[in-house]
Amino acid sequence: MPATTPEVISFARGAPSPDLIPVEAVRAAAAKCLDDDWKTALSYGVGIGHPGLCNWIADRQGVDPGQVMVTNGSLEAGAMLFQHLLEPEDRVIVEQPSYDRTLLLLEQLGVEFVPVALEADGIDVDAVERALADGPVKLAHIIPNFHNPAGCTLSAEKRDRLVALAAEHDFMIFEDDPYRELPFGEEPPATMLSTDRADRVIHASSFSKTVSPGVRVGYLAGPADLIADLAETANETYISPNMLSGSIVLELCESGALDRNIGEVRVHLMERRDALVSALGEHLPEADYVVPGGGYFLWADLGPGFDTVGMAKLAKEAGAPFLPGTAFMLEGGGSSMRFCFASVPTEFMDEGLSRIAAAI
Amino acid sequence: MPATTPEVISFARGAPSPDLIPVEAVRAAAAKCLDDDWKTALSYGVGIGHPGLCNWIADRQGVDPGQVMVTNGSLEAGAMLFQHLLEPEDRVIVEQPSYDRTLLLLEQLGVEFVPVALEADGIDVDAVERALADGPVKLAHIIPNFHNPAGCTLSAEKRDRLVALAAEHDFMIFEDDPYRELPFGEEPPATMLSTDRADRVIHASSFSKTVSPGVRVGYLAGPADLIADLAETANETYISPNMLSGSIVLELCESGALDRNIGEVRVHLMERRDALVSALGEHLPEADYVVPGGGYFLWADLGPGFDTVGMAKLAKEAGAPFLPGTAFMLEGGGSSMRFCFASVPTEFMDEGLSRIAAAI
Repeated sequence: MPATTPEVISFARGAPSPDLIPVEAVRAAAAKCLDDDWKTALSYGVGIGHPGLCNWIADRQGVDPGQVMVTNGSLEAGAMLFQHLLEPEDRVIVEQPSYDRTLLLLEQLGVEFVPVALEADGIDVDAVERALADGPVKLAHIIPNFHNPAGCTLSAEKRDRLVALAAEHDFMIFEDDPYRELPFGEEPPATMLSTDRADRVIHASSFSKTVSPGVRVGYLAGPADLIADLAETANETYISPNMLSGSIVLELCESGALDRNIGEVRVHLMERRDALVSALGEHLPEADYVVPGGGYFLWADLGPGFDTVGMAKLAKEAGAPFLPGTAFMLEGGGSSMRFCFASVPTEFMDEGLSRIAAAI
Repeated sequence: MPATTPEVISFARGAPSPDLIPVEAVRAAAAKCLDDDWKTALSYGVGIGHPGLCNWIADRQGVDPGQVMVTNGSLEAGAMLFQHLLEPEDRVIVEQPSYDRTLLLLEQLGVEFVPVALEADGIDVDAVERALADGPVKLAHIIPNFHNPAGCTLSAEKRDRLVALAAEHDFMIFEDDPYRELPFGEEPPATMLSTDRADRVIHASSFSKTVSPGVRVGYLAGPADLIADLAETANETYISPNMLSGSIVLELCESGALDRNIGEVRVHLMERRDALVSALGEHLPEADYVVPGGGYFLWADLGPGFDTVGMAKLAKEAGAPFLPGTAFMLEGGGSSMRFCFASVPTEFMDEGLSRIAAAI
């Protein structure tokens, strides 16, 4: 790795730096799948995508293959789910802060947001109960592990309570879980999908953070009848998701290359997390945050008197962009900032934070 | 090629037989792009997809790069366009017969269909004029070349009239053109995109028939402001289309492998078309049809007294499925049948038709 400091050290986009992408493994997998699986990889499929990859995911998640469909990334999977389940003015629980792209998709459908604050161990379930007492809820969007943007992880106890509430109050939980495979220490608690006995949980994940974003392979796992409906919609909309990418990812899964890469990526991400925490202590000592136990993101709050929207502009000019908290909040967030540490190699972390500190 | 006759000889699905897929070229392109272009191929892009591929397509179509976006196949491109342009009860001109998946997407939006018959040289433009006299039209869906399912090609004169009508009556033409690159003899007339001076034409095509369906690479080319809007919607829905497939297709385009493959595929498809016409003469002499000048499909009408829905069931049981005309018509079509000849190698064409003739 050259020590030349880059012109831009970006904490803004939730994407891995290129050195975290297993290009050699993808190259080998592409060659293998185009030898052994080319008829499936290069032909039309159906709405569920590559059947072999559905089987592999079902096995990994402990569900039946009929409960899984592969999608062109998990964002569109969520978009299809929302279009299928939601009508304008339906009440939808969203975490605060939450993933900005999901909030936008929900807003476009005209739902009524029911914002619920995040705590260090995930969503405030007491507040969820109060919201349910106010009236019926159709869906709760939950990012359980190494939250984007908040960095927190939902506790096992809260997962159990949410699954029980969904069964009791008849709402769906959208368990949006792209970071599950990236813990730095202990594994996260069991998925809500795995404990749901009332067909109230639909789980989404992707290979964007474990293989690469450009392959655009995500998936949904949930109740078989809901998956069948969504697979039909997918077929009507785009015939099948990308079959070549599905075949390449399946080869990575089966060869063990996926798990090897996950092991390597975890080590690099943990180093970056540690470097960010250290640099924050030096350059932004007023920042208050939950140390993320995995994933890509750290959410820092600077407290009253700070304007992170203005700071973000200055930081961008100084060559170290980050996103202000307002991007992830329905209201407020002006004293918070999201750092993506996956995009910044360890050796540039201190320089990045020092640019931000100098700019503000 | 082994002479063993397959259990099923399918004329039903509009897909190439595997021997028409250039797997060696795709394998070489994948290796090359994962050497030279891996950062773009494996990272998130933006809504327009691979910028190099947009440039190549713009050059091929003779438009500005800002007028092009790559999509996950062209069906979803159409779906996004329809969602963007159309409101329930908008009047939309559709050809009769027309592509069943497009009719379904339009139906789901609740538009008012304005069906216009196809003639041997494409849509009946006099009938289009009469429909315009009845009230405003928002969109006309036109498959100009080697029509699916009808096999016909729109004449140059009719293209000019449609483009002029769109400018005069302020409706959009969706020029849905996946088969343009597959003529068997003379090249089709110029695209309506290329003659439009009023920003009323949006053109869609894909690499499904020139590379492979499984790569799911399509595109839109049209007015820059409309493309910008649709690219934003694409970004909000799925971040970027598949970047790896985009990179592989670009490598095929730039290396000349795409054009070599198109040349080979044309030869095979023409042989299949000829074999189908010959087999029809022998086994279904009552069939009336336009001999397609390219593409994948032949549309045969058997005349009054035939029930192709019932025949299609019998033919499927006999191991030679086809689709009845009703699938492609808003009303009627019960004496017509669509043959896809791209899916049937020449040496099995006669056997396929003889199964159908025997079954009915």
